[in-house]
Amino acid sequence: MKVRIGLIGAGWMGKAHSNAFRHASMLFGPEAGEPVFEIVQDIDAEAAKAACHNIGFSRWTENWEDVVRDENVDMVDIATPNAFHYDVARAALENGKHVYCEKPLTISPKQSKELAILAKEKGVVNYVGFNNVMNPANNYIKELIDSGKLGEIKRFSGTYDQDALLDETIKISWRHINKFSGSGSLGDLGSHLLSVAQYWFGDAKKVNAVSETIIKERPKAPDSLEKGKVENDDFFFSMIKYENGVIGTIGSSRVAPGRKNHLTYEIQGTQGTAYYSLENLSEVHVYFHSDESADRGFRKVLLGTDHQGYSAFYPQSGIAIGFNDLKVIEVHEIFTALKEGKVYTCDFEFGWKVDRTIDAILRSAAVEQWVPVE
Amino acid sequence: MKVRIGLIGAGWMGKAHSNAFRHASMLFGPEAGEPVFEIVQDIDAEAAKAACHNIGFSRWTENWEDVVRDENVDMVDIATPNAFHYDVARAALENGKHVYCEKPLTISPKQSKELAILAKEKGVVNYVGFNNVMNPANNYIKELIDSGKLGEIKRFSGTYDQDALLDETIKISWRHINKFSGSGSLGDLGSHLLSVAQYWFGDAKKVNAVSETIIKERPKAPDSLEKGKVENDDFFFSMIKYENGVIGTIGSSRVAPGRKNHLTYEIQGTQGTAYYSLENLSEVHVYFHSDESADRGFRKVLLGTDHQGYSAFYPQSGIAIGFNDLKVIEVHEIFTALKEGKVYTCDFEFGWKVDRTIDAILRSAAVEQWVPVE
Amino acid sequence: MKVRIGLIGAGWMGKAHSNAFRHASMLFGPEAGEPVFEIVQDIDAEAAKAACHNIGFSRWTENWEDVVRDENVDMVDIATPNAFHYDVARAALENGKHVYCEKPLTISPKQSKELAILAKEKGVVNYVGFNNVMNPANNYIKELIDSGKLGEIKRFSGTYDQDALLDETIKISWRHINKFSGSGSLGDLGSHLLSVAQYWFGDAKKVNAVSETIIKERPKAPDSLEKGKVENDDFFFSMIKYENGVIGTIGSSRVAPGRKNHLTYEIQGTQGTAYYSLENLSEVHVYFHSDESADRGFRKVLLGTDHQGYSAFYPQSGIAIGFNDLKVIEVHEIFTALKEGKVYTCDFEFGWKVDRTIDAILRSAAVEQWVPVE
Amino acid sequence: MKVRIGLIGAGWMGKAHSNAFRHASMLFGPEAGEPVFEIVQDIDAEAAKAACHNIGFSRWTENWEDVVRDENVDMVDIATPNAFHYDVARAALENGKHVYCEKPLTISPKQSKELAILAKEKGVVNYVGFNNVMNPANNYIKELIDSGKLGEIKRFSGTYDQDALLDETIKISWRHINKFSGSGSLGDLGSHLLSVAQYWFGDAKKVNAVSETIIKERPKAPDSLEKGKVENDDFFFSMIKYENGVIGTIGSSRVAPGRKNHLTYEIQGTQGTAYYSLENLSEVHVYFHSDESADRGFRKVLLGTDHQGYSAFYPQSGIAIGFNDLKVIEVHEIFTALKEGKVYTCDFEFGWKVDRTIDAILRSAAVEQWVPVE
Repeated sequence: MKVRIGLIGAGWMGKAHSNAFRHASMLFGPEAGEPVFEIVQDIDAEAAKAACHNIGFSRWTENWEDVVRDENVDMVDIATPNAFHYDVARAALENGKHVYCEKPLTISPKQSKELAILAKEKGVVNYVGFNNVMNPANNYIKELIDSGKLGEIKRFSGTYDQDALLDETIKISWRHINKFSGSGSLGDLGSHLLSVAQYWFGDAKKVNAVSETIIKERPKAPDSLEKGKVENDDFFFSMIKYENGVIGTIGSSRVAPGRKNHLTYEIQGTQGTAYYSLENLSEVHVYFHSDESADRGFRKVLLGTDHQGYSAFYPQSGIAIGFNDLKVIEVHEIFTALKEGKVYTCDFEFGWKVDRTIDAILRSAAVEQWVPVE
Repeated sequence: MKVRIGLIGAGWMGKAHSNAFRHASMLFGPEAGEPVFEIVQDIDAEAAKAACHNIGFSRWTENWEDVVRDENVDMVDIATPNAFHYDVARAALENGKHVYCEKPLTISPKQSKELAILAKEKGVVNYVGFNNVMNPANNYIKELIDSGKLGEIKRFSGTYDQDALLDETIKISWRHINKFSGSGSLGDLGSHLLSVAQYWFGDAKKVNAVSETIIKERPKAPDSLEKGKVENDDFFFSMIKYENGVIGTIGSSRVAPGRKNHLTYEIQGTQGTAYYSLENLSEVHVYFHSDESADRGFRKVLLGTDHQGYSAFYPQSGIAIGFNDLKVIEVHEIFTALKEGKVYTCDFEFGWKVDRTIDAILRSAAVEQWVPVE
Repeated sequence: MKVRIGLIGAGWMGKAHSNAFRHASMLFGPEAGEPVFEIVQDIDAEAAKAACHNIGFSRWTENWEDVVRDENVDMVDIATPNAFHYDVARAALENGKHVYCEKPLTISPKQSKELAILAKEKGVVNYVGFNNVMNPANNYIKELIDSGKLGEIKRFSGTYDQDALLDETIKISWRHINKFSGSGSLGDLGSHLLSVAQYWFGDAKKVNAVSETIIKERPKAPDSLEKGKVENDDFFFSMIKYENGVIGTIGSSRVAPGRKNHLTYEIQGTQGTAYYSLENLSEVHVYFHSDESADRGFRKVLLGTDHQGYSAFYPQSGIAIGFNDLKVIEVHEIFTALKEGKVYTCDFEFGWKVDRTIDAILRSAAVEQWVPVE
Repeated sequence: MKVRIGLIGAGWMGKAHSNAFRHASMLFGPEAGEPVFEIVQDIDAEAAKAACHNIGFSRWTENWEDVVRDENVDMVDIATPNAFHYDVARAALENGKHVYCEKPLTISPKQSKELAILAKEKGVVNYVGFNNVMNPANNYIKELIDSGKLGEIKRFSGTYDQDALLDETIKISWRHINKFSGSGSLGDLGSHLLSVAQYWFGDAKKVNAVSETIIKERPKAPDSLEKGKVENDDFFFSMIKYENGVIGTIGSSRVAPGRKNHLTYEIQGTQGTAYYSLENLSEVHVYFHSDESADRGFRKVLLGTDHQGYSAFYPQSGIAIGFNDLKVIEVHEIFTALKEGKVYTCDFEFGWKVDRTIDAILRSAAVEQWVPVE
């Protein structure tokens, strides 16, 4: 099954998507899905040209409109900054294209809802790249939750900290300006926690947040004395009540010294606990209160052939999975959706529901009280 | 310098105190402080008698009033359930005794304030047993904070989780009834986090909390079908704004599967981060952004002869400190206070300030919004 | 630069190689190297056909002789059981092909030496797939060693334990029969440790080993009562003296309960120590005695943009690298060798020197005394 | 039951013993054992006097002969450098005293055997202070071994590394001179591993060792230019075959950068594995192959009320045990021996058997081949 791809955005993430398409096809065979690299767009012509050449696209362009209208494109793959997702995705849907969009879906629930409805009308495959949702580690934890092995889940606490923006000398970028990003660490990092939690627990009901911009101004260019205002959260934290009764406490920071990719969470039930850190992608820690008392302890379970999504890569347990592999799993989900006509996990409706929580957290942080997710 | 001790409460903690007095005296010499085990009280006569015999007290009694009035007692050492602290401490102070009281000081800031004022009037040594404040690990972190090595501190997040009360079959006890305990996991566990944070950052300004009673009823006796109502929090969580601008996020649970003594926290500054877990008492993790870029990483620093409070025990770094050693350090603080006429750390005023935060968290959890610490 | 590939062996490893060729080409561009999937061989026709189809080879065959003679093949990529490496590599070299061979090079130093000499005569690129040698973690450790930051290196201790063959019910396979495998855990697992050590320290001088076959017989088929004899080591251990004075202690087991991919080692110098575990592929632990005394501790360094080989994959530090990424780095080495006409790391001569140590360990384990590496 | 103690050696270890006697008595009651601090000796009169004063001994002396002959002494407690153990213990035994001696028992198996025979003749309690043998962590592992939960034990690997003597500027001391110490890291550190292994597995049968003096000379005084020769091993390593078939690989170093108290070992059986590190005294890691496949992982078991020896200290699991607590457990063993007339663990015969292995390792390291334990 060939899928002719039009890629929007030729940066790191766009390349990672392309590799994932190719790798997934090799692993599962062309019947499962086979990418045809039709056209790649980037506003930077050099970047577009280079990606075209390196990845093997047939054509390149500077204009995304060329891509969404292209008759030879089956799927538009959006890997741009957040604020551009909406326009591109809308146009792609209107042209009847399948759409694969990086997370978060858009920068407002209103936009996201519109896209979700439109995608449903058009009957096309629509997928948001929340790569942690189908991470085999999280799949395993989901199975633990669903099987009842952890009892009734009571508490979810999570952190996604990085220090990529710790230095004050790092120049201001689209990430710091709300009209491009929608929010700061919340949309960029926090959305990963929110997506996983909502996949497991269902919708969030209300939230109570704080946020802070720690570095308030940044230089406009690397050595410039001229500074621009950082408009959004370097750090946020929110208490969250989920529809199913779970209490969540979630935060993230992009200025946390020493934390590189510290997405970590803990789920406590009445009979067990599981915790995880993305920095050690291939291990899950789980505790069963049902174990014999003297031998109880957190088990460090290495991902392996018993865990969904792993065996495609490695025939033996304990071989480290990397970020690129997660993207392969994601693309395999998309291939499957193309065949079965149905997205089981991160469709646009799901992306919209995550965006609603992001929006509620922004509103709550502004008024500093509980606000409902709307 | 002999100190004649009257111990109130002959349970585990009372015995730990007594051992700490003896051990501190051996380590630092009798001039630094030497306990005379004068009298021990417990409402359970057998317990009082046994402690008297084993520890080597001269006398025992069932009535605490005997102790606080005893002419041969210099210091009253209170190791009872929380709700009894106030009456005993008050009477002891009124009789001019030095008072060493387990944490939390009382079950209300009103009581604690009264004790703090009375203690000051009487000019006696008054100390609350927050054993984590002078833990060498925390001393080391305090030095990192005060030296500026971590930059300006922005964030404190902490958890104190245990599963000692996870089983629903555990019978109801004083811990579950507010008139005896004041609160649930908050006063018992959370107070350790609050004490450390306030020692480092100063007073809390306002708090925003949630709490939950997960096991709502417990049997009145081990195999009884009759049940009593659990009145307080199995789990609480609070956002806290400190006077100095630090944002804290603190929680605890007594029903967290697999967590045995999981007091853990992380302090993030603008130039570094430190984190710690009491389950690995003798190691501190610290990250310096000032390290050479390729070699940056969290350092696992084992407590040793470079860290205040360690060398009294061991002549060489990396030998594991235990809980009993923390109590020896605490008693050494008290001996020092007796000599210097001044408590530098956890006096009753400090205990009162911690109790104010506990009270604010209870009030906030009731109304589910930010409330000021009063 | 196009490279027409003939793949021998269509199992997991062969597929991993093919993906690595494709991925490396996408990352570094076709000028750096671009695979043309010419022909794939497997003795199992179905496997050959499937790999041909999924990966996109032009043709398939059951006979490896077809591949080594094929005029359209530039490079023969050998991913078969160990014992077949020699014949295929020899024939490929004789036909003037570049050769990329999985580790270990052959099952005897005699064979390996012959191949190394022949490869040099033919002037072709020859590479052994010791994927850990250029692992960014090991590159970083090599830099620490070479820079003198660890002082003079004194000691190397390493373990590579797995439990893939722990169950006695697992049937006998080529891995257990010396004419196919040459040795047991030694060649399969231990060779990874030996390759890394020799890349860092130079040749081994003498060895002193023990080995043991723990499961002495295995069923000939999954449920068969008929059993075959396991001929080689489930476990070996060797002391090793390197030419440069380092003392090594190295062992491995394929029946170590709970150890999945536990390649771990520690290097101690006079001024510092580094240790590593492949189960946490993306982190290196390093200690500098030169750090300020109170702040000394092992640093957990997450691989990132400061470490050679990482940035090709990810623009930000701390994103997990997986096994597939290691193979991409390996292939990139091969592409570079094709351009520069020189292998800097794991050429056949290097592979031969590793095989000499393997051979010495086998001889030592037989006589249980120090034997020289010859 | 009063025990009148004569302490030989008033350094850190002597004080730790004294505290342990007192603490054990408090915990288990005076009937179980009650120390009477009769007399303390040190060749440094000031040290003797200070210990006498601080601990509460009745008298002090510079001459150990005064102690072993003292009619008021029931038990001689030897906490001196290794080489003095023999003379003191011999004289004490000849005077019919009970003897508690720090490890290792002596500096030669010949001396140790003599003491073991003499102690048996005299019918007194004789105990060697191998504090790790009855460490609750090791007790738990012993139970795992004895219960068969780990299957048949095949392999024991252990390391005891420290860096206390890493700096070349540290002056030469008794530890470096064989007539005082018998050996270097081997007797000081390695003996801990040997004692635990022999307690579990029985006698060692033969050994094959290497050793190295890394810092060959040290200053005679802190700032002296005059240097003395270091006579013994900074580092040793030995393969060991135990009578019961277990293969051991054991090493230690006193110049291992960053390793402070890194006593660590792993036991692999046919059905499970356990590993431990003394730097995290209160946790044991154990893997059961019998666990359900997808949920298998090393369990981090925190010591607690289910583990022998723990409950004396703490009523709740997970509270950190420290080195001082281990010594209390050791003294409790001695009290029990005094009551029951029998040492179950580390009597002089056991100490002798450990010394035989030390001696074999020294002989093997000299000839660099397997030598039998004699």
